[in-house]
This record gives sequence, C-alpha cells and structure tokens, in this order.
Amino acid sequence: MQALPGFRDFLPNDCAARNYIFARWREVARRYGFIEWDAPVLEPTEIYQKKSGPEIVAQLFNFTDKGEREVAMRPELTPSLARVVAAHEREFKKPLKWFSIGQFFRYEKQQRGRLREHFQLNCDIIGETALAADIELVSLCIDIVRAFGFTEKDFVVRISDREFWTDFLRSRKVAAEQWDEILQTIDKFGREPREKTSEKLGQLADPVLRILSEGGKSEKLDRLVDGLRARGLADFVDIDVRIVRGLAYYTGIVFEVFDRAGQLRAIAGGGRYDNLIEQLSDSAVSLPALGFAMGDVVLGELIGETASAREAMQKAIAAEQKIDIYIVIAKEERRADALAQIQKLRDRGYRVDYLLTSRKVARQFQTAEDLGARVALLYGDEWPQVAVKDLATGEQKLTPNQELLAYVARSLSLSS
Amino acid sequence: MQALPGFRDFLPNDCAARNYIFARWREVARRYGFIEWDAPVLEPTEIYQKKSGPEIVAQLFNFTDKGEREVAMRPELTPSLARVVAAHEREFKKPLKWFSIGQFFRYEKQQRGRLREHFQLNCDIIGETALAADIELVSLCIDIVRAFGFTEKDFVVRISDREFWTDFLRSRKVAAEQWDEILQTIDKFGREPREKTSEKLGQLADPVLRILSEGGKSEKLDRLVDGLRARGLADFVDIDVRIVRGLAYYTGIVFEVFDRAGQLRAIAGGGRYDNLIEQLSDSAVSLPALGFAMGDVVLGELIGETASAREAMQKAIAAEQKIDIYIVIAKEERRADALAQIQKLRDRGYRVDYLLTSRKVARQFQTAEDLGARVALLYGDEWPQVAVKDLATGEQKLTPNQELLAYVARSLSLSS
Repeated sequence: MQALPGFRDFLPNDCAARNYIFARWREVARRYGFIEWDAPVLEPTEIYQKKSGPEIVAQLFNFTDKGEREVAMRPELTPSLARVVAAHEREFKKPLKWFSIGQFFRYEKQQRGRLREHFQLNCDIIGETALAADIELVSLCIDIVRAFGFTEKDFVVRISDREFWTDFLRSRKVAAEQWDEILQTIDKFGREPREKTSEKLGQLADPVLRILSEGGKSEKLDRLVDGLRARGLADFVDIDVRIVRGLAYYTGIVFEVFDRAGQLRAIAGGGRYDNLIEQLSDSAVSLPALGFAMGDVVLGELIGETASAREAMQKAIAAEQKIDIYIVIAKEERRADALAQIQKLRDRGYRVDYLLTSRKVARQFQTAEDLGARVALLYGDEWPQVAVKDLATGEQKLTPNQELLAYVARSLSLSS
Repeated sequence: MQALPGFRDFLPNDCAARNYIFARWREVARRYGFIEWDAPVLEPTEIYQKKSGPEIVAQLFNFTDKGEREVAMRPELTPSLARVVAAHEREFKKPLKWFSIGQFFRYEKQQRGRLREHFQLNCDIIGETALAADIELVSLCIDIVRAFGFTEKDFVVRISDREFWTDFLRSRKVAAEQWDEILQTIDKFGREPREKTSEKLGQLADPVLRILSEGGKSEKLDRLVDGLRARGLADFVDIDVRIVRGLAYYTGIVFEVFDRAGQLRAIAGGGRYDNLIEQLSDSAVSLPALGFAMGDVVLGELIGETASAREAMQKAIAAEQKIDIYIVIAKEERRADALAQIQKLRDRGYRVDYLLTSRKVARQFQTAEDLGARVALLYGDEWPQVAVKDLATGEQKLTPNQELLAYVARSLSLSS
C-alpha cells in the first residue's frame, strides 16, 4: 500500500522541513504587516471554470459530491480570495495585506518539481492601485526567499508587465478577444517549438519574436526597479517581457522567481489582477488586487541543492526536534516518583521523555543522547536524591528531588 | 458565491484562533516527546473500506480520479498512519510517538459541532503493548486540553476497555463475528431509542443494559487510573464502560473527552488498535498501537463558551497580530529614505508597516494605533532627524536617522 502517485507522505524529517519552510514564510509575511487567512480546500468547480484558464480546469481534481454539487479540490487560492473579499470587504480597511499557507492540487503529469499536490504561500494586497503596492509585493517575495539564506547570486525575480503587451496589441489593432490566446502563446515561448509559436502568432510573429529576443522596456517597469533600488533590492530583479504568466486573470505587473542557474521550475510567481474580484462577484464589488504564490516543492529542491541553505535548515530542524530533559529510571520502585516529576516538568513547558517500560540504564542514557536531551535525571539508589547529569559536559550532581524544579531551571537556562 | 455547505472560510480572526489551537496542540505534544508527521489529504478509498467501519465509508468524499483510481479525501488519519508505519517501520526505534495536525472530511448532515471538514490533532504511540503507553497517551490528551486553561471542572475523560466487553461476550459464548455489531449497538446507547437497542441485542439485552446502567469494573482500568493518579491527573477521568467508540478497529482501552456540562459533542477520542497495522499491511508488519484525535470545532466551541479560556485566546491572538513599528511619512520627499529604513528594520526581524500612498499624518498615526504598533517613526521636516514616538506613553524624541536601528532596538527591548 502506497500513497497515490504525486502525493507525499511526510515522515518526521520531511514534516520538519515543511514546518521550517512554513515558519519562514509566516515570519517574513508578518514582518511586512501581512495577516493570515485561509479558504476551504474544496470549492465549487465553477469558481475555477470562470477565470483560472483552460489549463487549470483540465487538471482539476473535480467530482460530483453526495449532494450533487460540482466540486473541486483547490488548484490555486486566488478565486477563493476574490470570493471571500467580495463577501466581507466592508469589514476591513483597505488595502488588505493578507497571506495564506495551504495545500493545492493539480492532476498533472509528474515530473521534477511537479507533484499532484504542493503547499503554497499566497500573499495578496487588495484595494490599492498604486505601483507602490507592486513594489511592496515584489520586495516581500524577495525577502521571503532571502530568509532561507539565498542571495542575488542564487535567485532572480523576472518582472514584466501585461500592459506592455496589451498596449502593443492595441497599437497593432488586435481585437481584445484574441489577447488571451496570444498571451498564452507568449507564455509558452521557449517551451514550445519556435515554428509552433510563429504559426500561432500569424502576422504578429515577426514583431513579437523581435521583442522577445531583444527585450522590451516601459516607464512603469523602470519606476518599479527604482522603487526596489531604494530598498537595496534592485540586484534581485531582471526586467523580462517574456514573462506573462499562464493564468488568464492578470492585468498588469507580473513576475516569476527562478534559480539563477536556471535548473529548476519557477519558485514563485504572481502579479496584478485588478478585474478578477469584480468579475467573480458579478460586479457587486470592484477592487484592484495583486498577489503571488510560492510553492514548497521547487523551493525545497533549491534548499537541498545549496549547501549553506541546506545546513541552515538541518540545524533548525535538529534544534526543533530536540528534547530538554530525559528521565532515566534505574529502579522500577522509583517509576511513580519519576512520573510525578515528569508531569511537573512538562507542566512548566519542558520537553521531557523517558522509556515506557523497564530497560538497562545504559540503553536509557543512549536514548537520551539520541533525542538530543541536554540534561538527564537519574532515579535510582540515591533516592530521595536524584542525579542530574549534564549530557554535554558529562558532569553529574546529586540534588534532592524536591529541589529539582528550581535546579533544572537554573542549569537549563545557563546552558542555553 | 459562498463556500460549500459545511466548509469554513478562515477570515483573519478565525485563522488566528485556528493557529492558537494548533500552537498549543503542537507545544504540548512536543513536551511529551512526540514528533510531527503528516500523510496525504487524498488516499486510495480502499484503505478506509478495509477497516474504518461502514459509517465512515458512507460519509466519504470519494470519487474516481482522472487516472481511473478510486480515491477519497481523508476522513481520519489512522489508516494512513498504519500504511506509513508498515512501510517505514525499520527506519525508526520503537516505540514511535508521533503527532500530526491536519484537515479531515466527512459528508455529514450539518449540525452543531459537526461540519463537513475539521482540523484534527492525532497523537499515536506505535510499538508498545504496556499499559504505561495508554497512561502516557491519556495524560497527553488531558494536558493538551489543560493547555487551553481548562480544569477538571470543565472537562472529563471517559475511559473504557473494549476487552471488558469482548471478555463479556466470550463468557456468553457469542461468536466473534457478531462482536463488531454488538459493540456498535453499545456505542449508540443513549443516542438510539432503548427499544431499538434491546431489539438489536436480543437475548444479551438484559445483562448488557444492566452493565450500562450500573457501570463495569476491571483490574486493567483500575491500574490505568492509578497511573494517572501518580501524575496528579486522576480527577480528570471517569471509568465509563458505555464508551466503545464508533470505529471498528479498536482492541483495548478506549476513551472520549467531554465537557463536564455535557452540552457538546466529544472534544477528543481514541484508544488502542493493536491489530490494525497488521491487517492493513497484509501481515507484513505487526505492531501494537494506540492513539487519539482531537478536533478543532468542538474544542473551539468550548473555548468560546468559557470566559477565561476565551480571554486567554483573544489576548494571544491580539499579541500575535500586532506590529512593532509604524512608519509615518509626513513629507513625500522622505518616502525613499523611509523605505530604506523600513527595509533595514524588517531585515532585523521587526514587524513594520506604513501606508503605500500619501495620507494625512493624523490618519497615519491612527493606523499605527489600530495595528497595535509600539513605536512610530515620523519622517518629515526634522530630516535627517526622525521623531520616534512611544505609542504607549506618547513620549516623542528626535534621533538621527543613521542611529535609528540601535535606538529602536533599545527602546523596543525596554518596553517589552
């Protein structure tokens, strides 16, 4: 019996790595004044059909529930965000700065960096049209990747602007109904054979391919880079108009984060979607918005491949999994006394462990070391004294059981 | 557009309450030396059909995926645990003490304390037959509920033993194939009309109903209470043989946690399932095991109804959502300088916020207070000095921008 293909079991070390990633995501988002929210994992299929674009809809884990509702396991968060914000927008001052950490599902062909589930951080700013919001969002995205120990040598944010392309298409008098399809073709540039791209673009092939190879510029993108420069973050970004993002609902600045070596899929991606809330709420609420998502799978691969980031993670995980105090029960007659003390120590917040059944003392000390305990308490012949052993130095001292709490508090605070 | 019936949107305050519950779950489980793991949200339907019992299977969110697999959103964790442990048991020393926090799904009639999704803490001990493990597990369950500020006046753990009933059935020469059905009937006692219970029990009705009304005793249950007494936890438990648990796979000690007032559904439940890993792994691995699950919905209701617990939660949430420093930009010419400082402060780990666009200074100070900031930095006419305002005392002091980092570090550590 195995997990389904594309789904992960999180054994303790995997789970610790996941928690390490979540903790950094949460910590940096909060530094930026973002507050956490979440939406259901299961949503009406309709909210994805309306706006996510055909690629996502084709990959849904969707079904008919026992109440004959068409439902889908969420492939992305943005439609839920638009739904929730439209329903509750009067309750909150704008702009909202919201983040969320949760699991998402796509029935995809499995390949490196792509499973059928992954965890994502989503950060969104709702209710602000100013470019300052785009700068704030890109800064947050950069600082989150930096929190894992990465520098501008390790990753880059490629930034573009859908308006650059829609201005171009308007100047070429291309009908608005065709824009989505052309943007999808530009999004696939480099991943599809060039002939196919040319064929799809038709008479636009020449000018579009010229822009894609020579690059594009815009005053808005220059101002965005200036804003990042004021924060000392300009070295983390490249203007790259080849980025348009696969999702149909983006309207302005879009960006994707890649490893500098170009070995991995995108670490994160996002942009502005000023019309989505209005469209999903049937014009009941209109709010400009922008956001990005960062997945745990590609980020985890980059951490795994970068020695310094990997070591920082392993160190944090080891510290997290350690216990404080191990109780060695040398004589079974002392078990009840030991358990009473264990209860008191745990009540004070210490992480305390012991063996549930009788074992040799040497085996118990070995377990204490395996678990990373800093102190072992030995309940045996010396009763009503207890031997307190510092497992780092090997020093051992007898203390009356009644004075143990104070003694342990002192010695653990000294060695921490 | 709304969430599906029985599914919750977590607005920021809801999400903070959820995080508050998760943090306490995690903290106390770690005090007991439990380590965290997780399994997929989607599993082969088969693992629930095999052992969870007919009630759970009838309530599955199950479907056929795009690869023609029969899959189900997990209604409980134990079958996944048995699967994962059977596959990896050689990698870990026994006993395993594992916990997990995740979301679970059942297509149920909605009622108080029952939605179609909820979050659960699962704590399991694998590879230990001794009653000491049952005592450790029940203690953990009690201490987790205590961590929310509840005492023995607020909740009770009702403990029973399936072996009490299987011994009884064996003494009455009831064929083992009938045991499951009889245990299910006992489980429903008090929730079904008594005539229906009697009818289902047949000639066992009289003796069973007598035990259910008079109570039952066993030496094992006495030893369990003694073990809890040694830890000072005996007042939190009642022996109650009416508890048998709905799930089919329990084999020994079983328990459920209820509010003392008896107003709510069970807060938690669990027990021993010594045969499940063997059965789910087709006899490849045989390991005794026990565990419990605690849901967030009923626990959240009990917190909401108990003034002291509710206040403790609200206080923790308020502290969690506060920012440290608010930047007031009184002159737009200073925005770039302010942003450079904001970047430095956030890099040092402070939670820093500011308005993305120009607003009146009074409005900015109001926002600073709304966000619970401890300090506001005013960028205006005094440049290159910055006014540092302690928002608790109202005291204001001019400091050179270059010396701000050190100054803020000092004043925030003083006021914390």
